[in-house]
Parts: sequence; C-alpha cells; structure tokens
Amino acid sequence: MSNSFVVFSQRAQNNIHTMAQKAKNNHLIFRPHFKTHQNLEIGNWFRKEGVDKITVSSIEMARFFIADGWNDITIAFPVDVNEIQQIDEIASRVSLQVLVSNKQQINYLAKLKNRVGVMIKIDAGYHRSGIWFEETEIVKEMIEEIFQQPTLFFMGLLAHFGNSYASRSKDQIVGIGTKSIHRMLMLKNKLVKEMGIIIYMSIGDTPSASVLEAFEGVDEIRPGNFVFYDLMQLQIGSCSLDQVAAVMRCAIIDKKADEKQLIIHGGAVHFSKEVLSFEGIKSYGRMVNTSSKKWELCNSYLVNLSQEHGIIQCSDKDYNLYNLGEYVDIIPIHSCLTANLMRERISFV
Amino acid sequence: MSNSFVVFSQRAQNNIHTMAQKAKNNHLIFRPHFKTHQNLEIGNWFRKEGVDKITVSSIEMARFFIADGWNDITIAFPVDVNEIQQIDEIASRVSLQVLVSNKQQINYLAKLKNRVGVMIKIDAGYHRSGIWFEETEIVKEMIEEIFQQPTLFFMGLLAHFGNSYASRSKDQIVGIGTKSIHRMLMLKNKLVKEMGIIIYMSIGDTPSASVLEAFEGVDEIRPGNFVFYDLMQLQIGSCSLDQVAAVMRCAIIDKKADEKQLIIHGGAVHFSKEVLSFEGIKSYGRMVNTSSKKWELCNSYLVNLSQEHGIIQCSDKDYNLYNLGEYVDIIPIHSCLTANLMRERISFV
Repeated sequence: MSNSFVVFSQRAQNNIHTMAQKAKNNHLIFRPHFKTHQNLEIGNWFRKEGVDKITVSSIEMARFFIADGWNDITIAFPVDVNEIQQIDEIASRVSLQVLVSNKQQINYLAKLKNRVGVMIKIDAGYHRSGIWFEETEIVKEMIEEIFQQPTLFFMGLLAHFGNSYASRSKDQIVGIGTKSIHRMLMLKNKLVKEMGIIIYMSIGDTPSASVLEAFEGVDEIRPGNFVFYDLMQLQIGSCSLDQVAAVMRCAIIDKKADEKQLIIHGGAVHFSKEVLSFEGIKSYGRMVNTSSKKWELCNSYLVNLSQEHGIIQCSDKDYNLYNLGEYVDIIPIHSCLTANLMRERISFV
Repeated sequence: MSNSFVVFSQRAQNNIHTMAQKAKNNHLIFRPHFKTHQNLEIGNWFRKEGVDKITVSSIEMARFFIADGWNDITIAFPVDVNEIQQIDEIASRVSLQVLVSNKQQINYLAKLKNRVGVMIKIDAGYHRSGIWFEETEIVKEMIEEIFQQPTLFFMGLLAHFGNSYASRSKDQIVGIGTKSIHRMLMLKNKLVKEMGIIIYMSIGDTPSASVLEAFEGVDEIRPGNFVFYDLMQLQIGSCSLDQVAAVMRCAIIDKKADEKQLIIHGGAVHFSKEVLSFEGIKSYGRMVNTSSKKWELCNSYLVNLSQEHGIIQCSDKDYNLYNLGEYVDIIPIHSCLTANLMRERISFV
C-alpha cells in the first residue's frame, strides 16, 4: 500500500461520544452528517452512542446508508427538481426529510406519492443558499404551500453556519454561532407568533457545534467533520490536536537533499486541492508525528500537489528522520474532501 | 442525473487523431497518458489510431487497463519501493516500464524476478522530481547499476516539462519546451558519447506536445490531458475552444436574483478545488454555451465550491437564460482531476 487514509479509532470514537453527550446535555437531537466519513463501520460507532437519525448530502449517499439499515435520513442539500422520482422511491422505504430553498421546489415536491418531511433552508449569514432570515413573509408563504400538499409534512427550519469556517479563534466561532442562532430565533419567534405553529430548528456546522455552550431555541445539530477534524478545524480553534482523528499516510518515493524536500505518493487525487496559508506559506497539509499517544506537529508542510505526487518542505530535523520507502503522516486541510477521495483506502488503527 | 462529466466524442476523437498524426509526422512513438480519462471506451478510440503503448500513473491504473488488453505500459511515477511485489506481478503479464529517480530504487528493483524496463527520470527545469540534467555522472552510475541487474533493462530518459503549465502564451510554451528538450539532448549526447549506448528519450506534457513543431532528439511523447483539454490549457494557449472536449453538466438547484448567482449541484467532490484567476477573479470553472457546434464562452464563472454546491457568478444575460432544474455546462480548470472524480458519471455526446 503506497498510501492510505488512517483513522485513529479511539480518537474518532471519543469525538463521537463527546458530541453525543453534548447533544444530550443540551436536549438536542443529534443528527450527524455522514458525508464526512461515508463509511459503514464508522456509522456503527454512532449507533453505539444511540444515534438513529442521520444527515447526508445526496441521493446516492442516502441509498448507501439505507442499505445498511439507517431509516431516518435528512438530505441536507436543496432539492434538485430533476430528482423527484428518486426522492419518491426513497420516501417509500424510509423516513425522509428534504430541503427546499425556494417555492418552485415545493411545486415539484407536490408530485410526490410518498410522505416526505420538508425543511426550509435559512440563510443566517453564510450567503451560500437559503432564504434570508429577515424574509419572514417568503418563509410563511412557503410553509403554507407545504401545508397544502397532502404528502408534504413541514419539518422546520434548517441552517448551515458555514461562515464559522472563516473564524480564526474560538471567540470568533462563538460570536458567529451565537449571532446566527439569534437570527434564526428571531425568525422562529415571528413564525410561532404569527402562524401559531411549532417550529423545529436544525443547525449544522462543526465549529459551532464543537465550541458553543448554549443552544437556545435549537432543536437539532448536524455536525459531520468533527468525527475526524482536520488542519482547518485546528487552525480556526474548533478542536485540539488530541481530537484530530485521521491522517493521510504516504510513502516517501524520493528525497531531495538540496531542497530538504520529501517527495511522497500523495497528490490531488488523494488529498484534494484544499489549501490554507500558514505564516504566508500555502499548504495542502502538515506533517505530524503520531508515533506516541501525544501527537507532535512538525514544521514540515505539504507545499505542492500534482495529480499523484506531493512535495513536503521539511525542517532539517524532519528531513533527516525519514528514509525512502518509509511513511509520513499528514493532517489534511479538509478531511471531508480527503476522506471522500480515499473512501476505498481507509485503514483503522 | 443531477450532474455528469460530458465528453464530446467527436472533439475528443479529433484531438486523439491530431496528436497521433503529429507523432507520426515527427517519427515519434505515441504513448498517451491514460490518467486523464481512465476510461476503457476512450482507450478504444486510441486503439483505432494505432496506439498500442500507454502511460499510467499508478499500479492500480496499470491493472485497470491490463484487464482490457493493454500490454505495453509505462508507469510514469517514480517507483515506490513498497510496491516491488506488485510490479513483479504485473511484469509477469505484460511489457512493463517503470521510472526511477534515485539509485536506491534500482537496488530494490534488483529483487524483481520478471524483466522490467527502467527509465530514469530527468529534471529539465520543472524541479518536482528527477535527476537534474547536468548531473551526468549520477545518471551514468544509475545506468551502470541497471546494466548489472539481469532482470532490468535500461529503457532511456524520461522527463515531464510540468513548468510549461505556468506559460501564458503559445510562445512561452515553445520557449519552455524547446529549452527543456535542448537540456535533455545535452545529457543524451554526453551519455551517447561517453558510454557508447543508444539513449531513448521520452517527454510528457500536453502544452509542449500540442504546440511544439520540432522534436529534435525526442523518441516518444506521453501527453494525456489533450484528449479533453480544459480551461487551464485554453488560458495558457495550448488549445483553442474548438478543441475543448469535455464539460461538467450541472443542474441548477437555486437562483439568487439579487446577486445574479446560480446555485448548482456541483462541488469540490465533482470539480476538485483546482483554481485559476481570470482578471483578478478566482474561479473553479467557466460557463460555456455548447448548444451549437461553435461553442461560446460565457462571462459567468464558478466562483465558490463547497463539498456538493457550486455558485456561478453570472452576467445578467446568462442569469436570465436559465431556470431552476435546467443544466449549465462548465469547463473545468483541470480536466484530469474532474474526470478522476467523475469516473463513474461520464456521459458521451
């Protein structure tokens, strides 16, 4: 094996346990996002913590987990109106929730023969998709549309605070998370008052779920990345090094003494090309020593990625430690993208 | 289907024919790199042009094409010394060439029971890996090492002029390609003179293979990307829009009128996160109108990619042209990475 995505089972299980406990203590439904790991064994670790509701991001991923017995699934991706038939088929077999971000999608969903829960995507500041939280009238109209359709069941409001990824400290995450929840709550309270209905509220991102201590008005959390965390989460302050639970393990295929570089078998088709800057240096990952229980970050960065190759710019110490054919461990920038590419090359330690 | 990688068969076949003819006219062996498409049907298009030698970038990819009857394969990736057994197994079945970039790899290859051709990787200016072209003594020692091993057969010198990707015009590509070939030739001539042996010379990149008219001293070309080309190749001047032969076709899942944005089902797990700048705007792809034979580039760019979503920043005209559920075509930045991610969702038109 020239490279693999190595999952440190105890660490990942600790992460799952911690998040499940946090949800319990805050009386939240825990509906983890499975797009990060896309792995049946890791799915079972969630089962052990009592999880029976999951989030996925595509029809394909829903089917993958349904085949393993999961039967309460939210596809947290705005409905593609070309996929109404597939949604209907899945809804005939399991309890399914889908997401809408405009009225037209509801018109298409009206054709469903099977009962489907519908959540409305709210934009609480991320600006990627969803209805802006101040557009109460639009949300009301959408809820009323959903009420009118016999097979559609209004499930609540859903948001993803993706802007928390731009944080550079725990405090900033708390700031963005708190403000976003407050915005959702403003909308929720208006709807409760004006429509006299109960509003279920689901939020998503790993940074907020990891760092926030208060979840006023929130009913459900859907973090996914926290199972592994990664270099981005470490940088923005949503985890500690002890919580990082996966690395790319790559063989050294060449050494360049003049440049103190290690050439590894690990490229864009393994890591993805997600990039971050560390003190001005663009990097696709950072070397880490995992040989003892307490990991040690190395001052050696993955500075270049071709399709199959990667180049690690090493500190003198790290360069001399490793020989041809040996393996180095690298924390990827975004573990979701790396895990997706390495789905068939996961190894557990 | 909410998205697919659409290959325009006639265009791709034209590209293959043009490159095969160019090789023929210049008396070059044409050993195309199959890492770009990784597709058996496209492999057959090469067969029709008389191609029977191919390049791949991994053991896995070699096995994939061997299963389809290909039997003369170069793995153009420096030998991972952990994979000697797999190399031996493959060499027992087909004519195999591997690549070395240091002496240690040759020591490991000495354990092979089956005959393997060995090429030496030369760095002609790209600085990623390989022996610097002026290090004649090192190359000579390596060749002598190879000569001493009964199962190893010295095949020649191999280079990849990856620095041609940094060009911004045809002239620059010609400059880098010519200079790199000249450097290879200097090394080759010294070796021929001092060792009295024939030296086979193989070069790789799509920009040089597409644009150069003279290939003095070159025996083999190994371009891969040219089968589809992409936005990067278009920008650096190695192809025309008429030669681009693949797009990502993505469904529109939402429209944001205020921002003139289309939200599509196409994210980092489909496109990869390769990025380029166009007039200061970072972009992951560019919209193109493929409805008539003559394509038209749109002033609409894929400016943001999440795991599954993409955001297209549109011109007013483009924004109004498309409705929810309709499909848009986007030329990816780097077709090799997109095709790799979309391997199982290719459609041919």
